[in-house]
Amino acid sequence: MQAGRVTRELTPAQRIAWLRLIRTDNIGPVTFRQLLNRFGSAEAAIEALPDISAKAGRPMSPVSQARAEDELARLNRYGARIVAQGEPGYPEHLLQISGAPPLLTLAGGERLDWRRTVGIVGARNASSAGIKMTRMLAAELGEAGYSVVSGLARGIDTAAHRASLATGTIAVLAGGFDRIYPDENIPLAHDILDNGGALLTEMPLGWEPRSRDFPRRNRLVSGLSLGIVVVEAAKRSGSLITARLALEQNRDVFAVPGSPLDPRAEGGNLLIQQGARLVTSAADIIEVVSSVDPARQALFEPEWLPDETASPSVEPASDDRSKLVQALSTTPVEVDELIAQTGIAPQVMQILLLELDIGGQIEWSSGQLVALRYS
Amino acid sequence: MQAGRVTRELTPAQRIAWLRLIRTDNIGPVTFRQLLNRFGSAEAAIEALPDISAKAGRPMSPVSQARAEDELARLNRYGARIVAQGEPGYPEHLLQISGAPPLLTLAGGERLDWRRTVGIVGARNASSAGIKMTRMLAAELGEAGYSVVSGLARGIDTAAHRASLATGTIAVLAGGFDRIYPDENIPLAHDILDNGGALLTEMPLGWEPRSRDFPRRNRLVSGLSLGIVVVEAAKRSGSLITARLALEQNRDVFAVPGSPLDPRAEGGNLLIQQGARLVTSAADIIEVVSSVDPARQALFEPEWLPDETASPSVEPASDDRSKLVQALSTTPVEVDELIAQTGIAPQVMQILLLELDIGGQIEWSSGQLVALRYS
Repeated sequence: MQAGRVTRELTPAQRIAWLRLIRTDNIGPVTFRQLLNRFGSAEAAIEALPDISAKAGRPMSPVSQARAEDELARLNRYGARIVAQGEPGYPEHLLQISGAPPLLTLAGGERLDWRRTVGIVGARNASSAGIKMTRMLAAELGEAGYSVVSGLARGIDTAAHRASLATGTIAVLAGGFDRIYPDENIPLAHDILDNGGALLTEMPLGWEPRSRDFPRRNRLVSGLSLGIVVVEAAKRSGSLITARLALEQNRDVFAVPGSPLDPRAEGGNLLIQQGARLVTSAADIIEVVSSVDPARQALFEPEWLPDETASPSVEPASDDRSKLVQALSTTPVEVDELIAQTGIAPQVMQILLLELDIGGQIEWSSGQLVALRYS
Repeated sequence: MQAGRVTRELTPAQRIAWLRLIRTDNIGPVTFRQLLNRFGSAEAAIEALPDISAKAGRPMSPVSQARAEDELARLNRYGARIVAQGEPGYPEHLLQISGAPPLLTLAGGERLDWRRTVGIVGARNASSAGIKMTRMLAAELGEAGYSVVSGLARGIDTAAHRASLATGTIAVLAGGFDRIYPDENIPLAHDILDNGGALLTEMPLGWEPRSRDFPRRNRLVSGLSLGIVVVEAAKRSGSLITARLALEQNRDVFAVPGSPLDPRAEGGNLLIQQGARLVTSAADIIEVVSSVDPARQALFEPEWLPDETASPSVEPASDDRSKLVQALSTTPVEVDELIAQTGIAPQVMQILLLELDIGGQIEWSSGQLVALRYS
């Protein structure tokens, strides 16, 4: 058992506490982990939340126990389950990405191969050639034993899921389980489950996907995959964002080329110029992902997971908070720079940033840089 | 002046002798150079030819003085000239390729930029998209000051020449000056000359191009160019041969991508997978060729050129020739291996191989390996 790695299932009480905490405003995967880091457990963090948010000037309460229990019960009726990071059913590849969701809502996929996975993404307004190419790749990948991951969007995503229904497909949603987007793909979502595929999301029930949720969803599409294939994409498109996220996650990026006269080929051609592998058939993909060096994965240490023991409590000095707020601006800076500038001890700095984070006063970029939120 | 490098014009007598020698059967660029190397001048090689070919068992005479004079006179009437390797008018880039023609027949092109050159090649049965792409690239390269080199074939070649007529274009012929192929491009050849472009060939007047002459022509298209662009090409095509020759000549290779569903894109996509640069516009090409490292050219030393002084004469021992013929087979071997196997001195070996070469008994591959000719 690796140090600090949860390898057992959460107790029912822990699961409710995790759900309450992650469903609370201003608490994303990074803050969630910082809170568990500081307070040792989700239960303890929930206890402390009113107090530390008050210190940051914006008193707030965690989501209620009743609401969390209600979500669990309703998910249950949908045939979906909640899987926590570190539990046996949590997709292994996701453990290695930055900002992995503490909890996933997941339905189906019990017999899928979650390790041999390839993501396929592309334009919603795909050409018939793009659709045909996607079907070929998805079917060939499926025949070769790979599960196909995509985002249930129109166009390329839809073609990828449909062509891999029989062999195994994983759809990542940008919204809640009861908010399949687009509506026209609700039948496809049912077909996926009926065929043993999986639907998953990190968003709560009832969440209507907004435009900013799609890049967030895309990081899970690439995070779940050994590599991702871009089939048709314009020069500025969500698919190119997915490709960038995939590279940041140390995933292989593949692109299908096209005529420079076809605007839908611009993104793929650009990716190839930037180093993505040119794909003409599934064999080009399989050749690479079948030999992914296991050592490569180790580039990304699984993120910290709580050992459920509280860290020693430290109390900031009275003027530390104002010193820090003065040092912050809307320009992102590194924490080390803030420490050097303010003289605040690293452990205290961590607590203060956590409070400001929960108070909605700061935001993190790339998990490394911190800045005041535009208000 | 570099050692062994001719930087002056040939005398009229030398020019006739060079022409007689290169127009003689079984004497290609490599043998031509070996003969000048051994005998010090084309005149001396012509004198010696009957004797050394007789030693190889196939007595032969060089092309007559009258025939060479006749070719020169007729070329003159065509407005064409003969340029020898090392003369000021000989294209500089060609000096750096292996097996550069000792003599070129050349018309026009006096004011062309022969140093800033890009070759464009591709399918004869090009699609309209391929033709459009070629026109765009050739026109943009021309506007940027590059001369466009191609092979006057149907399809991509034709589009490349036409789109660069006004800015400068160079057509390399696979046959004689009076044997423009295909017939339909005779008007294009005239247009090229009328617009200050150049036509050139290494083949004699009256030579009908055969299929094996096209790869030979292609090595000149790439040899004249800083880099070559493949626009549309099937998986097994002359254009891919040109790309391979270009790589051997240390030229940059560019390819226009296309949909994997389009068979005409197979060659280009394959080249990109193998390391060719993906091209969507002339800017992609110019970015690379405009910064070709001058040191790169030095990878290829200009080939040996005669200093017109005879090397010391060596006489093979009586049984050396039979020893060598016994050691040779139709499987190509290195000369060093033959030397080790037979014990024949390197200088003697060179003479014997030259005799056998002129006698049509051996053939060279890659200029390095020697084998008995299939008879």
